[in-house]
Amino acid sequence: MTSSTFIRNAWYVAAQSGEITDKPLGRTICNEKIVLFRSLDGIAAVEDFCPHRGAPLSLGFVQDGSLVCGYHGLEMGCNGKPQAMPLQRVQGFPCIKAYAVVEKYGFVWFWAGDKDDADESLLPHLEWAESDEWAYGGGIYHINADYRLMIDNLMDLTHETYVHASSIGQKEIDETTSKTTIKNEVVTLERHMENIYAPPFWQKCMHLNHLDSEQLVDRWQRCHFHLPSNVHIEVGVALAGNGGYHAPDDKKAASIVVDFITPETDTSHWYFWGMARRFGVDDANLTDVIREGQGKIFGEDLDMLEQQQQNLLKYPDRKLLMLNIDAGGVQARKLIERKIQAEQTVQAEG
Amino acid sequence: MTSSTFIRNAWYVAAQSGEITDKPLGRTICNEKIVLFRSLDGIAAVEDFCPHRGAPLSLGFVQDGSLVCGYHGLEMGCNGKPQAMPLQRVQGFPCIKAYAVVEKYGFVWFWAGDKDDADESLLPHLEWAESDEWAYGGGIYHINADYRLMIDNLMDLTHETYVHASSIGQKEIDETTSKTTIKNEVVTLERHMENIYAPPFWQKCMHLNHLDSEQLVDRWQRCHFHLPSNVHIEVGVALAGNGGYHAPDDKKAASIVVDFITPETDTSHWYFWGMARRFGVDDANLTDVIREGQGKIFGEDLDMLEQQQQNLLKYPDRKLLMLNIDAGGVQARKLIERKIQAEQTVQAEG
Amino acid sequence: MTSSTFIRNAWYVAAQSGEITDKPLGRTICNEKIVLFRSLDGIAAVEDFCPHRGAPLSLGFVQDGSLVCGYHGLEMGCNGKPQAMPLQRVQGFPCIKAYAVVEKYGFVWFWAGDKDDADESLLPHLEWAESDEWAYGGGIYHINADYRLMIDNLMDLTHETYVHASSIGQKEIDETTSKTTIKNEVVTLERHMENIYAPPFWQKCMHLNHLDSEQLVDRWQRCHFHLPSNVHIEVGVALAGNGGYHAPDDKKAASIVVDFITPETDTSHWYFWGMARRFGVDDANLTDVIREGQGKIFGEDLDMLEQQQQNLLKYPDRKLLMLNIDAGGVQARKLIERKIQAEQTVQAEG
Repeated sequence: MTSSTFIRNAWYVAAQSGEITDKPLGRTICNEKIVLFRSLDGIAAVEDFCPHRGAPLSLGFVQDGSLVCGYHGLEMGCNGKPQAMPLQRVQGFPCIKAYAVVEKYGFVWFWAGDKDDADESLLPHLEWAESDEWAYGGGIYHINADYRLMIDNLMDLTHETYVHASSIGQKEIDETTSKTTIKNEVVTLERHMENIYAPPFWQKCMHLNHLDSEQLVDRWQRCHFHLPSNVHIEVGVALAGNGGYHAPDDKKAASIVVDFITPETDTSHWYFWGMARRFGVDDANLTDVIREGQGKIFGEDLDMLEQQQQNLLKYPDRKLLMLNIDAGGVQARKLIERKIQAEQTVQAEG
Repeated sequence: MTSSTFIRNAWYVAAQSGEITDKPLGRTICNEKIVLFRSLDGIAAVEDFCPHRGAPLSLGFVQDGSLVCGYHGLEMGCNGKPQAMPLQRVQGFPCIKAYAVVEKYGFVWFWAGDKDDADESLLPHLEWAESDEWAYGGGIYHINADYRLMIDNLMDLTHETYVHASSIGQKEIDETTSKTTIKNEVVTLERHMENIYAPPFWQKCMHLNHLDSEQLVDRWQRCHFHLPSNVHIEVGVALAGNGGYHAPDDKKAASIVVDFITPETDTSHWYFWGMARRFGVDDANLTDVIREGQGKIFGEDLDMLEQQQQNLLKYPDRKLLMLNIDAGGVQARKLIERKIQAEQTVQAEG
Repeated sequence: MTSSTFIRNAWYVAAQSGEITDKPLGRTICNEKIVLFRSLDGIAAVEDFCPHRGAPLSLGFVQDGSLVCGYHGLEMGCNGKPQAMPLQRVQGFPCIKAYAVVEKYGFVWFWAGDKDDADESLLPHLEWAESDEWAYGGGIYHINADYRLMIDNLMDLTHETYVHASSIGQKEIDETTSKTTIKNEVVTLERHMENIYAPPFWQKCMHLNHLDSEQLVDRWQRCHFHLPSNVHIEVGVALAGNGGYHAPDDKKAASIVVDFITPETDTSHWYFWGMARRFGVDDANLTDVIREGQGKIFGEDLDMLEQQQQNLLKYPDRKLLMLNIDAGGVQARKLIERKIQAEQTVQAEG
């Protein structure tokens, strides 16, 4: 059951809140085949396997907050214990595994370890998701690649110059050195470019933020990796000479690229991407425009990551390079590896 | 060669008669890759493998009742012996396996054991297929699930309440106890519901049979499992208080759901479904209407069975429940298992 | 690395010249996953694997004749040595495998063995590709079958009677004996049919060549197999009694069917097919018409070969027949086998 590629005792985003409607949702997270549904006590998750005849519970329906199997009507409780079935006494029925899930910040968080070990205080604090001063929009992609390849991708933004050449890429990114630091289990890689022209995506954001998009700007990228596999990137441009990252709000366009990267299997993941911004907060149409643009940009990475994964599977013994630009991903992987080893040590001793 | 999931010495439906036209038909039945074609002596079946270069004979054609390989013209006999080939003497050519097949009742029956053991007297007797008092219409589905999951499905109709909620399902089905009996290697599960309202499908049948579909009815389901894997279900509704199953013809709408379930591989099967009825027998349009309706209803089971199969493959060690509602399937599986073991004992002794 | 199904030290067609544009092309040839691109010194081929992070170089682009990785901008040389990367010193970077490729005759030729052993003098001499007296048109198919099944196919044209019945097939082909000879490692199978009517494809060619297509003709097929896996077939018809193959140009329609058969994996290949002709040489529209007709005819073989391959994989122990009509393929396979064994002996001794 223990996987060596991801941390078990941690919260992963399993779904966007809006994905769990009045119907159950089947999804594999961290190699666990689960079904998510809205019970009377909030969202619940159990194995997607009816103990009666093995039917997937995700093909069933929710009635009065209970999950009912769509094959022969067994009613499953949030705790994995069968609650009722027409004409049957279910007390002796076998149980299925139940999981700890929490709905918060517009996402459903899934604890990949034992339910009893789930600790809500370990949920991340997302200021942009709580404050009225921020607006958020995002989406989800399924990618056939190890989730750590996505972490690498997001912690080394020199790829923007190549993969996203027509939107956010520009030559100055890979001509500017970056700096990597680690503090409190957070890896930060930052890059500051001065006196450059904004690329198309940022020109559009400047325009939306009432700034002259033809002016020279200072541009920044501050990538933060948080365990188990979240990357938040502070990005923005300010009119040149106003302090860059520290410029006042009326001189800059800034936002946070939000990435929750959830393992599905050892070679596939769910990618929850989005953008939190502090301008045009009440403009729902702007949220849609940005989501569409960002979705298109992030879609450009899919093919690259999936073919990269195929290459790595074909040549399992080849060692990849770890350059200074890769330092963010390398350090993030080290933090992950250390946690996994600690979990396995505990397990071996237990 | 011996499979542990199905009986060898038995007749299985391999095709509907209409599927075998002037062209050969390639199909896998009971793990045998065969080609069916119309010879001068009726339908024949041989391995789908030309002994010349291994081409599939099903890509060939039928000429004067002979099967001709579509690659280089080898002419194959019904007995698996090459008959002729341009400019070649074929006497010494290797033979391929020939199978016993019989066309009867509008179906092609395939003997899954040795051709020499085939016994036509073991073909089932299907009165509805011979008598002018009955009309029949049906179809075929390919399903990626063990054929026994379909037997389970058909021998426990409580699933109608959930899977077929909008047509034949109704709450009274799983609120009414059923009774299972075994006699002469036939498993029968029956359920009688009294003073209920007919569900939409049966209301339509009542209407077609000139009965007032708003009246209370008695409804019955009598599922009969016959070896090796046929399920015939007597179903119907009668105006309440007229004897139910035994009501006179002018007080009821009744038919037989006909199911021939043929293993393709260990985890897939061909499902021949249909309905035989004694009303509107000469109405070909009615046959089409019923076929379409039944095809839609039975199509609702496909996804459930295929995902159930996936779940069982993922968790091979989990024991499923065997409730009273499952008794029909459980007993049918026992009969099958007993026959398989008898065959294997004979084989080991021989 | 050594495969037992094909020769290593030989030139294979990897692509048609027109397939390599300003973008790189990823393709697997002889089990090697390569990327082809136009460098300043002509077409080059290296492994499709960036030594930085394993990304496929075929998703990159060509700049000033260099192949640039589309992920983070590593610049790869034709020799497999990284040339440059933004802000990096690449001297110590690991290299990837480079391959010998030559562009000639409108094709890209790939040496499947070590680059250092590549010998351009071993390239075939294709007169029809050099001379103005000939015109050529062709295409490429991907086929999921061992490349040797295609050699068998082309060295036994009795299959035309069955697979291509409506175009080039006719009963006289498999009623006429063929003769197989081997000389200088070239296998030739020839068949001459006299006083017959031309089949539809050849009637069209006679018409295009200003001959009366209703007249009796002499028809010939001369299949030549060349190592490692090229088949060239001299085909044509002449008005009967004018010497057949040796008839003067104004009495015949003749062409060469050109087949380069390149292994992709052990059970799949790239099939480069085409036709070289000496009539209507300047008529580009005629080239298109012939290409379309030939493409349709050759497409009829695909399903047969792919299903034949599946049959052979299902029954690996069955021995196929080797009739006189199969002699061309059998002798070709012997030449191939002998070369492979010689290569393996050298390797073992080395």
